[in-house]
Amino acid sequence: MQAESEIVVMKFGGTSVAGSDDIRRAAGRIVGARREGKRVVAVLSARGQTTDELLGMAYEVSDRPLAREMDMLLSTGERISCALCAMAIHDMGHNAISLTGSQAGIVTDSSHTKARILDVRAKRIREALTDDRIVLVAGFQGVSGDSRDVTTLGRGGSDTTAVAIAAALGAEVCEIYTDVRGVFSADPRLVAEARLLKMVSFEEMLEMAASGAKVLQLRAVEYARNNGIPIHCRSSFEEGPGTFVLSEEETMERPLVTAVTHSEQEARVTLTGVRDEPGIAGRIFGALAESNVNVDMIIQNEPISEDHKADLSFTVGREDLPTATEVLAGLDLGERILTDERIGKVSIVGAGMRSHPGVAAKVFQVLGDNRINIEMISTSPIKISCVIDAADVPGAVNALHQAFELGEDAVRREDPTGDHRPIIEPGGDGGEPGDERDAA
Amino acid sequence: MQAESEIVVMKFGGTSVAGSDDIRRAAGRIVGARREGKRVVAVLSARGQTTDELLGMAYEVSDRPLAREMDMLLSTGERISCALCAMAIHDMGHNAISLTGSQAGIVTDSSHTKARILDVRAKRIREALTDDRIVLVAGFQGVSGDSRDVTTLGRGGSDTTAVAIAAALGAEVCEIYTDVRGVFSADPRLVAEARLLKMVSFEEMLEMAASGAKVLQLRAVEYARNNGIPIHCRSSFEEGPGTFVLSEEETMERPLVTAVTHSEQEARVTLTGVRDEPGIAGRIFGALAESNVNVDMIIQNEPISEDHKADLSFTVGREDLPTATEVLAGLDLGERILTDERIGKVSIVGAGMRSHPGVAAKVFQVLGDNRINIEMISTSPIKISCVIDAADVPGAVNALHQAFELGEDAVRREDPTGDHRPIIEPGGDGGEPGDERDAA
Repeated sequence: MQAESEIVVMKFGGTSVAGSDDIRRAAGRIVGARREGKRVVAVLSARGQTTDELLGMAYEVSDRPLAREMDMLLSTGERISCALCAMAIHDMGHNAISLTGSQAGIVTDSSHTKARILDVRAKRIREALTDDRIVLVAGFQGVSGDSRDVTTLGRGGSDTTAVAIAAALGAEVCEIYTDVRGVFSADPRLVAEARLLKMVSFEEMLEMAASGAKVLQLRAVEYARNNGIPIHCRSSFEEGPGTFVLSEEETMERPLVTAVTHSEQEARVTLTGVRDEPGIAGRIFGALAESNVNVDMIIQNEPISEDHKADLSFTVGREDLPTATEVLAGLDLGERILTDERIGKVSIVGAGMRSHPGVAAKVFQVLGDNRINIEMISTSPIKISCVIDAADVPGAVNALHQAFELGEDAVRREDPTGDHRPIIEPGGDGGEPGDERDAA
Repeated sequence: MQAESEIVVMKFGGTSVAGSDDIRRAAGRIVGARREGKRVVAVLSARGQTTDELLGMAYEVSDRPLAREMDMLLSTGERISCALCAMAIHDMGHNAISLTGSQAGIVTDSSHTKARILDVRAKRIREALTDDRIVLVAGFQGVSGDSRDVTTLGRGGSDTTAVAIAAALGAEVCEIYTDVRGVFSADPRLVAEARLLKMVSFEEMLEMAASGAKVLQLRAVEYARNNGIPIHCRSSFEEGPGTFVLSEEETMERPLVTAVTHSEQEARVTLTGVRDEPGIAGRIFGALAESNVNVDMIIQNEPISEDHKADLSFTVGREDLPTATEVLAGLDLGERILTDERIGKVSIVGAGMRSHPGVAAKVFQVLGDNRINIEMISTSPIKISCVIDAADVPGAVNALHQAFELGEDAVRREDPTGDHRPIIEPGGDGGEPGDERDAA
């Protein structure tokens, strides 16, 4: 009988399990799904500030903590959440079992603190489901297939754990419970008219995640797209429709523009007097990649002087700026290294853009009308990003949101309940490094 | 080369790894042993108050936390200690690896929160030692051979882990680092002249642990005796000879009396009007055992009345008193249940007692001379215990310690440095339930 029922994977972030009341609330949602006849696997993050506290302990003992031991240390946070939630579910009269990442069969490579999932051997989860148990899995962690050591998955780890388990079990949906109501047409903290999106496509969500939306982690969305697992992004703290992230065929319609995203955590590096020779760019960006610096946009001007020297600019996350300048200084390939930490980025994302070439022009015109200077541009078939002065970001996001009428009923994919009230969402759903979220 | 060198197992209790300075101090001791050419396995308890904090979290979520999940929860504490200590050792230029109980091959039965070790499959520890690594093992935990679930060992768990690993590896010695200087001839907090014992036999240590000495846990001493593993009990915080616990042949001489121990955590239960029939006592003590009540002493008076009814008294740990009275009330085998929580116990222990029948008489005389009333008596070949009024315990301990000249140089096994200064030792070396220690 149980073998026939639908499997749902539910993931709860750090703020969703922070206090004992939160644990019980999450347990209540899990038990609710069970009572509806579903078989439930829940993936939990570490509670509230646990991961930060563990990191603090490590840096108190050592300036450069060993990565393997950091994983052993950090992996305890999610185990604590799972054990407590299992106790709460048991008190509600249901049978639950907590599993570590290793016990749940999350097999990874050996890259400590940023491991990638290689396989999900879900035998033990399946057995527990067959025994009519609710299964709680510690997110963000796995076990190295080679060394049998505990590994952690780095940024977005618990979301990825949830999607990977959903894929391995053939779950109907992976529900991501967080401290925001879903994915919005813009960050509600910046744009009063920002609307909850009923559906977005995987491709749109990927572009949004890459351009500043933090509600879902890029890796998890990629994993979901590659395995065709629908994600349902919802609030732990209130009822509501949330947002479905689906394949493009399932989203039914493709509006021109779906959302405006932004980031204020960017920095630009300019290297002047770079010799215009083959292979130079390869050396520069190869060295940056080796140091784990993620480069976002790159612009190289044609050399205009007679000595064939050019200026090369690129943007990186602000936290990577010290590493990036250090790497460049070590290469000694240009004349001067200039940096600018006061830049921001505004992007519009929409699957309908593909067939409407006029969108980019409209973006530039709107920003120009608002006297906002565009410093760099990058595009994909469904995204246009502009680097602008950080101080201009709020104005730019509002202007674009209004110009593309993203707050209007005209956009059909809007929530039919017409819930347009602006809300200020809490900022972080911590629990693992980089697990902070905010609305689109 | 490494394969030939001596293996030492070092165990550090909760106060020995409480803060980051403590972790570094423990790491320094471990590295010191490595520098002496030994291969080192260290077993760590959870830091300071960690276990209490985790227990608090569990009881905040649930009134009756599930035992399996309690083990998943509590086992994180020792993992944190081990990961941090491995980081500290690495900073000192040595290669260390932390292992969970499961990774270390500590296979137990499935009795959650009080599992017993069935086997130590030390393959992974041996491999790491062969790779010239220092191995850190999370104490107090194992993995159930049947269910592959995380288990914890209950009271004295980390000491038992250390002794079990020492036995499996054929280690020369198991060093137990704690917050006291070793085993004393009496609790130095009660007896100013109490002396550090250089050696005690396993049998003596078992009797001392059973009669109130908390410096070493009964289970660990039993395991060590059964496997012939010498224990060296030492302070983490200062240098000193500590106390060796050895087989009787190795202790070389057998003084009449080695130590005076005491307990103030006793309670007495008296059941009046018990019918003097075969099987009644079996039913009473069977029911108590089923409820996990440890009964210490039992006295049944011969019935003097014509109705063949007797009074039955026994002592239990004070924490078991509510359960004991509840069990008795349910049986309905007597007339009245009387309890007394104001009793204490004083014991003298010594391997030499076997061949000197006059010791008991001397104990009774000393207590009588001090006007201390003896309420119950129990003996073993190397121990005499008397239940007395709790208020009389300090006086009784001092009187016996003086009468048997335990503070004198006449006892040859005394520390030759002649360090007789009375010290007040800190009271607890927490970190796991029941891990509090005090000197003998």
